[in-house]
Amino acid sequence: MKLYDSKLAPNPRRVRIFMAEKGISCDQVQIDIVKGENLTAEFLAINPRGVLPTLVLDNGTVLDESVAICRYFEEIQPEPPMMGSDPISKAQVEARQRHMELDGLTGAAEVFRNSFPGFADRGLPGNIGTTPAIPALVERGKARLTNFYTNLNVYLKTNEFVAGENFSIADITALCAVDFGAGAARVPFEEKHTELQRWHATVSSRPSSQA
Amino acid sequence: MKLYDSKLAPNPRRVRIFMAEKGISCDQVQIDIVKGENLTAEFLAINPRGVLPTLVLDNGTVLDESVAICRYFEEIQPEPPMMGSDPISKAQVEARQRHMELDGLTGAAEVFRNSFPGFADRGLPGNIGTTPAIPALVERGKARLTNFYTNLNVYLKTNEFVAGENFSIADITALCAVDFGAGAARVPFEEKHTELQRWHATVSSRPSSQA
Repeated sequence: MKLYDSKLAPNPRRVRIFMAEKGISCDQVQIDIVKGENLTAEFLAINPRGVLPTLVLDNGTVLDESVAICRYFEEIQPEPPMMGSDPISKAQVEARQRHMELDGLTGAAEVFRNSFPGFADRGLPGNIGTTPAIPALVERGKARLTNFYTNLNVYLKTNEFVAGENFSIADITALCAVDFGAGAARVPFEEKHTELQRWHATVSSRPSSQA
Repeated sequence: MKLYDSKLAPNPRRVRIFMAEKGISCDQVQIDIVKGENLTAEFLAINPRGVLPTLVLDNGTVLDESVAICRYFEEIQPEPPMMGSDPISKAQVEARQRHMELDGLTGAAEVFRNSFPGFADRGLPGNIGTTPAIPALVERGKARLTNFYTNLNVYLKTNEFVAGENFSIADITALCAVDFGAGAARVPFEEKHTELQRWHATVSSRPSSQA
């Protein structure tokens, strides 16, 4: 089993943290996205969409999408449950994980992809041809991130974690969104987001956050 | 059990088709997004994010996200399986469903949201404040849709359905993306997309497509 990974990008980090929480490890190959190594013929032969992370199983099966890779690990090793444990909690975790992705990670990606000079012609990730950066998405992305922090802070006033009482994949996506938002996108959460600070310190103290 | 629905929008349609395939029905309430009924205090009290579909269970639990609602139905009624049936197929269906969403439905939404005059100040869905339309997203969305049709056509040359041999949630998302792309976004697939035509005719002939 081999994971094609990028230490700089948020989506591969989601998988690395998920695996660390499950105690699963495998060979890792670093692919430099900024240099365009994800768009070489060699990598496109493995994943034609040209995105990371990509997991190749020992039988040759290619799983080319972050949450799908997590799903595979959840299925082959259900403990500890990271995607819910009964019909309602599974649906609630999925809903919250998708909120974190759509509201948070997408906003951070909009800011970074459309402002980083190295991606001036790569406004969208992967093997999709030339996609010029759209400056208006930088401002919209910043507004989405600010909105995301505010809403998450409200939620965390009455919930310990991002999808209720238990640490889950929704926390992983949120952590990657918050750290990518503060780092690459340069929109950190603020002092007034006290519950978000409390949660961020808690989840960042888990060893998996360093994976 | 009550489904807050919009006959005009692609995401509620995903849930209606999924339910029809499972033979599940429930009360439905139509919410007019164009008139902004999803942003009234009454609806925001049910779903603070102000998006559709939203499912309210008999015990009061609110599931506010399309794929999460499908997940709930898959868990309470596994037959027929629509999200895979073993660890690898579950991961592959999830990956393909997410490709259809990211590559297809997102492109169609970019075109429609940023060109429809009624959404000039609502470039993003839901309760997120004023988000001006971004004209550059219309062109980018059209290019994404064209790319999506071409890639899906290639995939369907060697696969009967969108995630391999079996009809799944990935076909539902793709059908909603293609029909929303051709309808609201006015970017239909072309005659040269012969495999896409074959697949579209097949899935459109299923009674669920009319749900």
